[in-house]
Amino acid sequence: MPKFLPDAAGNPGQRNDVRCVSIEHKLGIRASPTCVLAYGDTGGASAFLVGEANRGLECMFIMMNAARLSVGLQGVGLAESARQRATEWARNRVQGRPAGVAGDTPLTIIRHPDVQRMLLTIRSGVEAMRALAMYAALQLDRAHALPDASACAAALARAELLIPIVKAWGTEYGTELVSLGLQVHGGMGYIEETGIAQTLRDARITTIYEGTTAIQANDLLGRKLMRDSGVALRSLLDEFDAELTGYRSGGGAAAGSAALPPIVAAAREALSQLRVAASTLMPQLRAAPAAAYAVGVPFLRLCGIVLGGCLMARAAHIAARQLAAGGAERAFSRARCAQVAPASPAPMWS
Amino acid sequence: MPKFLPDAAGNPGQRNDVRCVSIEHKLGIRASPTCVLAYGDTGGASAFLVGEANRGLECMFIMMNAARLSVGLQGVGLAESARQRATEWARNRVQGRPAGVAGDTPLTIIRHPDVQRMLLTIRSGVEAMRALAMYAALQLDRAHALPDASACAAALARAELLIPIVKAWGTEYGTELVSLGLQVHGGMGYIEETGIAQTLRDARITTIYEGTTAIQANDLLGRKLMRDSGVALRSLLDEFDAELTGYRSGGGAAAGSAALPPIVAAAREALSQLRVAASTLMPQLRAAPAAAYAVGVPFLRLCGIVLGGCLMARAAHIAARQLAAGGAERAFSRARCAQVAPASPAPMWS
Repeated sequence: MPKFLPDAAGNPGQRNDVRCVSIEHKLGIRASPTCVLAYGDTGGASAFLVGEANRGLECMFIMMNAARLSVGLQGVGLAESARQRATEWARNRVQGRPAGVAGDTPLTIIRHPDVQRMLLTIRSGVEAMRALAMYAALQLDRAHALPDASACAAALARAELLIPIVKAWGTEYGTELVSLGLQVHGGMGYIEETGIAQTLRDARITTIYEGTTAIQANDLLGRKLMRDSGVALRSLLDEFDAELTGYRSGGGAAAGSAALPPIVAAAREALSQLRVAASTLMPQLRAAPAAAYAVGVPFLRLCGIVLGGCLMARAAHIAARQLAAGGAERAFSRARCAQVAPASPAPMWS
Repeated sequence: MPKFLPDAAGNPGQRNDVRCVSIEHKLGIRASPTCVLAYGDTGGASAFLVGEANRGLECMFIMMNAARLSVGLQGVGLAESARQRATEWARNRVQGRPAGVAGDTPLTIIRHPDVQRMLLTIRSGVEAMRALAMYAALQLDRAHALPDASACAAALARAELLIPIVKAWGTEYGTELVSLGLQVHGGMGYIEETGIAQTLRDARITTIYEGTTAIQANDLLGRKLMRDSGVALRSLLDEFDAELTGYRSGGGAAAGSAALPPIVAAAREALSQLRVAASTLMPQLRAAPAAAYAVGVPFLRLCGIVLGGCLMARAAHIAARQLAAGGAERAFSRARCAQVAPASPAPMWS
């Protein structure tokens, strides 16, 4: 379509028959001018072919898969931004006194147990989601770089399995964590000047664009699980299970006397629950699609939580070995291994 | 302070030394002009005593308890508004085709399984939250109207136990459901013109004002549970348990052959889990307050889900009896009893 291009002297080409007829007023990402385009109002607009004819959807999906991984990371990034804002706020804002703390003077709210719960929830969620996004990106790198063709194919299948999970879980849970970060601010979080309200408004698009959460779940069930009958998912679960089982039998001993962090057993139990869920779901994809697709989003969320938890268990295991070996960054490593032991239920009400 | 009051001729009194120095820009509820007030900049502002001296906090709490119940209902109301908007949208918006449905033409999105999941999640949540709010209001009425003083006191204790639960659960889950209603709209939900984005912005204040969710949890643990050593909660759980157990042994038979809706057994199991949680928590309130208050919000949420579920089980039981007795409004009654039977896990991956 050379008539639309500038000429050699730099004069603009002919105007194509497309016009912006309004700019939308959106909840957030207002720097992005989403607009209504009118094509062909004065005779007909010309289109450009991207790639080969009849392979447009395929070309679009190259962009779309990269975009979905990126949007998943956008959810993680906004939650990390909320974590930083909320932590800073909680360290400076003085209000009230936690139960059981002696004295009269008010304290910074980071001393309050529920504020700690919120901040640690955001932190652990961000770390698990980021770990899963990095793990998915690693599979894409492996698919490009491994010398063996079948290993490349397996890595690509694993990456493609993970991308809808990273996208949907990273944005759904990411938005939830941003909202928790706003909650830490109390009433000031509701004032636009504080900044965190914009983070929430901006985050809310991420579960919608580049395919809503339901579309990601449909992709996971209908394309990723059904096409290979669950081979890529099962191989991933087997590999994590073997790795976590390996920690139990030898990993601690090899590193001296490092105790196994409690999250390792929890992750193994979660893996086995995910297997039950997947085993229940798989035969229903063809037998009862309406029922199967109705649990697509909860199943995707379960995948995110369990796989993210496995990567956090791996991180805890590495941290425990580094602590046992006298490694540096001990506060960082201890935080990775920490888990509150559950209290024993008292029999008074049973 | 007669000098501030209008005189007999209606002329305004003296201006008190208080000025609005700015109006806040908020995420939502913009019709409510939250502002910064400056007192005493030109010599000192005069205050008015509400009620008796030294009983101000007590007076304030009469307003605050009513406000908390109302704000809980505000969360429910906004979620109901989102349900209506989302249902209307899903009935009209034509897009794609659900998996397993034959044909080529696109269908309205209410035919898509995940849209049905979202709409039914909102509906069941709204009904459970509304039932709990009504149940709490009933206790306030009973506290006013019962002839027996000790029955009045017990009803008041039950109302006061429930108010922080109605407030925090109704607003936290209410906001979550509004967000789900926005999700049903897809990209158009993010455009302010559609209206649902404002519902989400307006809903987001409800977990913050009249006491944040953490403050409600502190009230539940530190005032409601600790002061009476859990008597009011235990009496409520005992009563629900006796009622649901009664359904099993006689309710169905009395109404003919009405099958017990599956939610009744689920609610009984949930009640017993809540007992375990409460039994675990109670001794920690004094022994380990930091740990106990760190799980205050999750415990409150558990109370809301279980108590709301018990009321839904009661509704299902009544509906099943009405169906068995040939009562009217059969579609309404059937919806109350409906529950998808879980599929049996296949052993393929275990």
